Amino acid sequence: MTGFVSLVGAGPGDPELLTVKAARRLAEADLVLYDALVSPEALRLAPRAQCFPVGKRRGRHCVKQETIHRLMIRAATRGRRVVRLKCGDPFVLGRGGEEALALAAAGVPFEVIPGLTAAVVAPALSGIPVTHRDVTSSFLVLSGHAEPAYRPILETIPPHSLTVVVLMGMASRAALARLLIERGWPPDTPSALCLAAGTSGACTWTGRLDALGAATLATGRWARPSPRPSPWEGEGARLTALPIDAPGTIVIGRVVAVGARIAAALFPGSPPAAASHARAEEA
Amino acid sequence: MTGFVSLVGAGPGDPELLTVKAARRLAEADLVLYDALVSPEALRLAPRAQCFPVGKRRGRHCVKQETIHRLMIRAATRGRRVVRLKCGDPFVLGRGGEEALALAAAGVPFEVIPGLTAAVVAPALSGIPVTHRDVTSSFLVLSGHAEPAYRPILETIPPHSLTVVVLMGMASRAALARLLIERGWPPDTPSALCLAAGTSGACTWTGRLDALGAATLATGRWARPSPRPSPWEGEGARLTALPIDAPGTIVIGRVVAVGARIAAALFPGSPPAAASHARAEEA
Repeated sequence: MTGFVSLVGAGPGDPELLTVKAARRLAEADLVLYDALVSPEALRLAPRAQCFPVGKRRGRHCVKQETIHRLMIRAATRGRRVVRLKCGDPFVLGRGGEEALALAAAGVPFEVIPGLTAAVVAPALSGIPVTHRDVTSSFLVLSGHAEPAYRPILETIPPHSLTVVVLMGMASRAALARLLIERGWPPDTPSALCLAAGTSGACTWTGRLDALGAATLATGRWARPSPRPSPWEGEGARLTALPIDAPGTIVIGRVVAVGARIAAALFPGSPPAAASHARAEEA
Repeated sequence: MTGFVSLVGAGPGDPELLTVKAARRLAEADLVLYDALVSPEALRLAPRAQCFPVGKRRGRHCVKQETIHRLMIRAATRGRRVVRLKCGDPFVLGRGGEEALALAAAGVPFEVIPGLTAAVVAPALSGIPVTHRDVTSSFLVLSGHAEPAYRPILETIPPHSLTVVVLMGMASRAALARLLIERGWPPDTPSALCLAAGTSGACTWTGRLDALGAATLATGRWARPSPRPSPWEGEGARLTALPIDAPGTIVIGRVVAVGARIAAALFPGSPPAAASHARAEEA
């Protein structure tokens, strides 16, 4: 008897934002190998399964990639139904391609179940559309992890021609903003930092591009938009010192100003966002 | 009593790829306003609801955008629970931002429930990861609808620096390919055309960038990957004359060659794909 591996995208954290198929696979799983940022609520959907963390966080590699491959292959070979549960989408900076190739090489049957990628869903949960009519019909998704990868692209993109979305860019956000401004992007380009989107700790900073590097309560506006609508973090001391390793999605472009108008309606407790962004958009 | 509008992303068509939250909203809905490409299976998840098509297809505008706004607002004002069901994600070329602003202006409470965007999921269901280690960590999503929007971006992107994903580009794919080749992209850059992804009629063409404009059975390889694994469209006469208005996602870049290796394992009935792409990748 041969088992089966499902490479599953868990989306942003909220288990309600898993796909129906992902939830079904979790319910049937014998073993779940999950990333560090997968929510405990998602794991509760797998009551029969042994759940094993194999996550990596910046600077703290817990389990080697090869070990993850070996664990999946061994369990499937023993007839177990394995869910490899990955944050966001397995094929967006998720090493899902590598895991698929490893399974293919081992002759283990597998499938890929896409998930909501933070690149689109983190802005959306903050009210920000990555495209918007008469603003832009394009967006660019890149990793902020390695400068040699992102620099040649950001150096060439005409200012305001599209929305720039950066994943894994919390540590490099000052450098990213500086680079774009050097290449002609206006320093007051509306920008957002969507932190822990889709979790109960979600909050969003919005402000100018030239303030992105030093994003604190003083340099922009903070909202706590999701999953429950709630007021601004008016006195959130926690936010004045932003933990550099918080999972965050950076959004740069005029759509952020559109998003602030949408957010004002989505999260009625936060009127300052609307005011602040209406101004940014008019400017 | 005030109603409520949920702007819901339906994903690629397969109702299993709806989010848990989207399925729940459909089950509770009184009225569903749906796009042309939404699958009948998804609508079956809304047994209580009146379902009304408001879709647009290229060249055939059935219902004006303003009419959609009016229908949503009127129904919600009368206390109905409205699901505005949109293909893919509401905020990726889906005019979700406009609809959100219209609802906000009318004072109608609403929410946004993201869906799987074709930009990531159409490649994924064909086995193609939009990012892959040592290939690229970035991807660009653009609309092929309007040349003035995509030309300035494609003219500047360094060849092979990222994966190019084009939505609504079936009619302009020859022009897109020509433009990239003029700007230095190799004519043999691996390219894919993912048609009707996530539906029972899904099939995928892969071939060279310079053959993309004339994508037929003769110029590349066709697979019918999803939702059921099945053999190549060896004699699919249908595919020799590709309907120009088929919903398709274009993927350009080396990740397509990686995807062909993954697809060979995912869809074991289609060995020619693997052979063809292994060559493309070695070249």
